[in-house]
Amino acid sequence: MSYKAPVKDMLFNIEHLPRIDQIAQMPGFEDAGLETAQAVLEECARFNEGVTAPLNFEADKAPSTHSGSTVTTSEGFKEAYRQYTEGGWQGLQHPAEYGGQGLPKTIGAACGEILNAANLSFALCPLLTDGAIEALLTAASDELKATYLEKLISGQWTGTMNLTEPQAGSDLAQVRTRAEPQADGTYKIFGGKIFITYGEHDMADNIVHLVLARVAGAPEGVKGISLFVVPKFLVNKDGSQGERNDVYCTGIEHKLGIRASPTAVLQFGDHGGAAGYLVGEENRGLEYMFIMMNAARYAVGVQGVAVADRAYQKAVEYANERVQSRPVDGSVQGPASIIHHPDVRRMLMTMRALTEGCRALACTAAAAYDAAHHHPDAEARRQHQRF
Amino acid sequence: MSYKAPVKDMLFNIEHLPRIDQIAQMPGFEDAGLETAQAVLEECARFNEGVTAPLNFEADKAPSTHSGSTVTTSEGFKEAYRQYTEGGWQGLQHPAEYGGQGLPKTIGAACGEILNAANLSFALCPLLTDGAIEALLTAASDELKATYLEKLISGQWTGTMNLTEPQAGSDLAQVRTRAEPQADGTYKIFGGKIFITYGEHDMADNIVHLVLARVAGAPEGVKGISLFVVPKFLVNKDGSQGERNDVYCTGIEHKLGIRASPTAVLQFGDHGGAAGYLVGEENRGLEYMFIMMNAARYAVGVQGVAVADRAYQKAVEYANERVQSRPVDGSVQGPASIIHHPDVRRMLMTMRALTEGCRALACTAAAAYDAAHHHPDAEARRQHQRF
Repeated sequence: MSYKAPVKDMLFNIEHLPRIDQIAQMPGFEDAGLETAQAVLEECARFNEGVTAPLNFEADKAPSTHSGSTVTTSEGFKEAYRQYTEGGWQGLQHPAEYGGQGLPKTIGAACGEILNAANLSFALCPLLTDGAIEALLTAASDELKATYLEKLISGQWTGTMNLTEPQAGSDLAQVRTRAEPQADGTYKIFGGKIFITYGEHDMADNIVHLVLARVAGAPEGVKGISLFVVPKFLVNKDGSQGERNDVYCTGIEHKLGIRASPTAVLQFGDHGGAAGYLVGEENRGLEYMFIMMNAARYAVGVQGVAVADRAYQKAVEYANERVQSRPVDGSVQGPASIIHHPDVRRMLMTMRALTEGCRALACTAAAAYDAAHHHPDAEARRQHQRF
Repeated sequence: MSYKAPVKDMLFNIEHLPRIDQIAQMPGFEDAGLETAQAVLEECARFNEGVTAPLNFEADKAPSTHSGSTVTTSEGFKEAYRQYTEGGWQGLQHPAEYGGQGLPKTIGAACGEILNAANLSFALCPLLTDGAIEALLTAASDELKATYLEKLISGQWTGTMNLTEPQAGSDLAQVRTRAEPQADGTYKIFGGKIFITYGEHDMADNIVHLVLARVAGAPEGVKGISLFVVPKFLVNKDGSQGERNDVYCTGIEHKLGIRASPTAVLQFGDHGGAAGYLVGEENRGLEYMFIMMNAARYAVGVQGVAVADRAYQKAVEYANERVQSRPVDGSVQGPASIIHHPDVRRMLMTMRALTEGCRALACTAAAAYDAAHHHPDAEARRQHQRF
């Protein structure tokens, strides 16, 4: 077994730390009790242990490749992503109103850990889509919501986060990508972005870029940044796929440890301008992007737990296999695997304790997020937002 | 420039820390003054910056491969090794009596750092040969010395160190490889060894394995271990290459960070027994092997300095390229490369200080080795051996 999801420990946390029975009393979470959590986590474990985890090592050896303006993901990724969307995993913690399952983040975050532990490079695609969904849910117009949310939540389309530019890093005050207002209320986007996770790939029909840009005449610095939806393919009025938009991948970069995740360099507007749709109001882009960035920050914390647990499991496996010296307590005659050595056990137990501690913390934080959004009492919601 | 050897800092150390002019007064080191050191280090820098360093990254991506019982090293390694031996680099610090240049380790260690920084995977082959040479020089019979030393010192043949076995790790008390005495004074070797650096490759005509094994009836534990020379090809009386010996590579293993270095699994004696030649006396093998292990330990310390310096150079290069935010002191208008940020400078200076400090320590230790072997006064030699 290359990876075994820690379902038992997760369920213990969900039952006892945030008290899932209390979360299930909040409006909208009525079906989200312990039994649901157990059923979801067991299915999530089955899917990722069987489908995404086995792709992890091979994909690291044969990463995504770039040619022209297209990116081909590692072998098996496209089919695994098809199964991922078919299982409804992308919509797990998103509103039923747009086709999601509407489950608490308390359950969703545990599933996120399993997915990330199984295959971090693969998991980055859904992780970014999650963030794009949260940002649109919070800040976008009803029209943008109607056009994009359902397909992002089903996983038919994926999302990205476009902040960094080559001349400024992620110092957003210096963003130079510009948005030119058009007569029809849309914008034309021009500029270059770097380090865009899953900025181009072949796993979904469309890619929905959330892009920070500056409208002509906007105030200097971060107060003059607006947020735009820039789809890879335009969307027709009936929701069907339209023309190719003027955003193209000019290369992918190597990131240590996530070789199979295509980190794209994107060029907007080299052929007349990329159609962009304003999210919320002009010059409030940074505020909206922070919704996505905070979602990503939490998810990256969960990634840490995920990688730590996968590493722990590998370490235990190796400590059981690797033969070296004899046990100090004489419990084994002759050569022993290193798991018999007290200092090796101490190191393994430290790994395990730190990983389980951080998992408990992540579970508690997810529950606070759920309460901040779903608690029936406004003051309680406000309190949990500060948490 | 992918790597720039720190020749200036090395020469400063050699001149001022161990005082190369004092080393040059020891018998045998008469020609090893500062001018020699400078000429050698500059040529060493030129060779490694131009030949071995450019192979480093590509070889990591396309490591050594194993097929049948042969190993094909990464592209360019064979030609680079040819140039390495042609330049006389293998014999730099070994006795002129056997064709070496007889220079102090004080100079040789600096060259070792350059080679390891340029290409660690490549450097492991000469590193192991150095250790084999030291062990044979100290413990082998005149006949073994005459047969093997000249070709090891020229680099025409390479050396290996065979300790670890799959059932015992490196717990040498449990070595099971056995040596059966033959009527002609040689031995037949039977057993398996793992983790053998450059245990098989295509860069040299012959490979000289130094192998720990147990003679029938030997005392239990480490007091019953003997050391044998087991060449890949037997050597005819006239020094020419003889029959293939019964030692075969059955696989290579992956080691993190040194993918291009073939780490071999070796099987001895599956086809009647591998011819082995006793080094020194029976049951004193561990004592002799420690000569090689200590040489390797020192060389691995130098590797640490080498990798640290290469990493530092990469970090400085990246800090000059990567643009992020503005400098706090206002010294640059608009975006700045991260080397302008005080905390980045602090980190780079910490890397540099630690690297240069360890380089100075390595230089001092190399000089102590030279004094321990070459100081005209016996008591001074003894004092330096304790250092």
